[in-house]
Amino acid sequence: MSRFLVLEGVEGGGKSTAQQFIADWLRARGKAVLTTREPGGTPIGEQIRAILLDPANAAMTVDTEALLMFAARAQHVEEKIKPALTAGQWVVSDRFVDASYAYQGVGRGMPFERLDALADWTLQGFHADMTFIFDLPPEVGLARVAARGEGHDRFEQEKLDFFERVREAYLQRAALAPQRYAIIDASQSVEDVQAQLVQVLERLL
Amino acid sequence: MSRFLVLEGVEGGGKSTAQQFIADWLRARGKAVLTTREPGGTPIGEQIRAILLDPANAAMTVDTEALLMFAARAQHVEEKIKPALTAGQWVVSDRFVDASYAYQGVGRGMPFERLDALADWTLQGFHADMTFIFDLPPEVGLARVAARGEGHDRFEQEKLDFFERVREAYLQRAALAPQRYAIIDASQSVEDVQAQLVQVLERLL
Repeated sequence: MSRFLVLEGVEGGGKSTAQQFIADWLRARGKAVLTTREPGGTPIGEQIRAILLDPANAAMTVDTEALLMFAARAQHVEEKIKPALTAGQWVVSDRFVDASYAYQGVGRGMPFERLDALADWTLQGFHADMTFIFDLPPEVGLARVAARGEGHDRFEQEKLDFFERVREAYLQRAALAPQRYAIIDASQSVEDVQAQLVQVLERLL
Repeated sequence: MSRFLVLEGVEGGGKSTAQQFIADWLRARGKAVLTTREPGGTPIGEQIRAILLDPANAAMTVDTEALLMFAARAQHVEEKIKPALTAGQWVVSDRFVDASYAYQGVGRGMPFERLDALADWTLQGFHADMTFIFDLPPEVGLARVAARGEGHDRFEQEKLDFFERVREAYLQRAALAPQRYAIIDASQSVEDVQAQLVQVLERLL
């Protein structure tokens, strides 16, 4: 049986490392795995992602940002995620719909009811089987990002306060459907985080 | 008093010529006029337009197309149209929300209720003061486009049947709020079309 897994959380939580770990772990158990990410995941979605992340697009309104996120998501679901699940693959996505509640919702102040309307319109009930929330104090995550010496895209320039509120949004979302969420303590060592992931993955198998 | 005017209709109906005529006519009467277009109208909107019109993006789903159209529209309204109206300018846009009902709705088969939901979400009641529908048999319009020797973008490659249904959609939309629509017989000569426009413009002044 195929499953749709999503990794969410503030920057520096170790999602990328975890995505590779989960894919390897599942493949070692004979599963076909597709790894993907949002915003993006398809050629059209990557073009939309480029608009969203370009620091030159600072005039973008929050409504435009949300509609672009869901445009990329609609394409991602229909072109990539659903066909892979139908073909029996496990899909592991770096971010999905909860990111919109965190970044456009709590982060930018868009009411959750407006995001609910857009999510219902686009997804029509489709949801991840399990969403892993990589939870850690934002200052720890941002320090990790800074240590990687990466350039700052439009989102990473936002203040620490933004990421504090984003963290809260993820925990609120998880509380609405606890059976479909796993809160991962991402402040722990890589080995500890992987042990937490394996606990959930074994339950899913 | 400023007004928001929109030009709609199938390809080859003479919208571009009419837009220039209307702007000149209003300016000759002392009005400040902003001309704009959809999809696009802002730097961010033009980036979205490029994705929408690229023939390489043939895998685009109708939901993605609609969300991108409304993303560009949200930016257009907030960044350009509303500020111009507030500053006392008349705004004349080549296409607006009715184009989504025509192209994504009747053209691509998206139910009007789904477009209503997206239009309500994005516009929250904002609408044009007058929408001119440039109405003519699609084969006449397409013959005019062909005579201009222009390249075919992703929309112009569609079949004649598509444009027949698009024409019907515009007429249906106009019937819902006849006081805010003017059907222009675009099969007439340029002079006849301009006489029809002037009749409506004089009423608006």
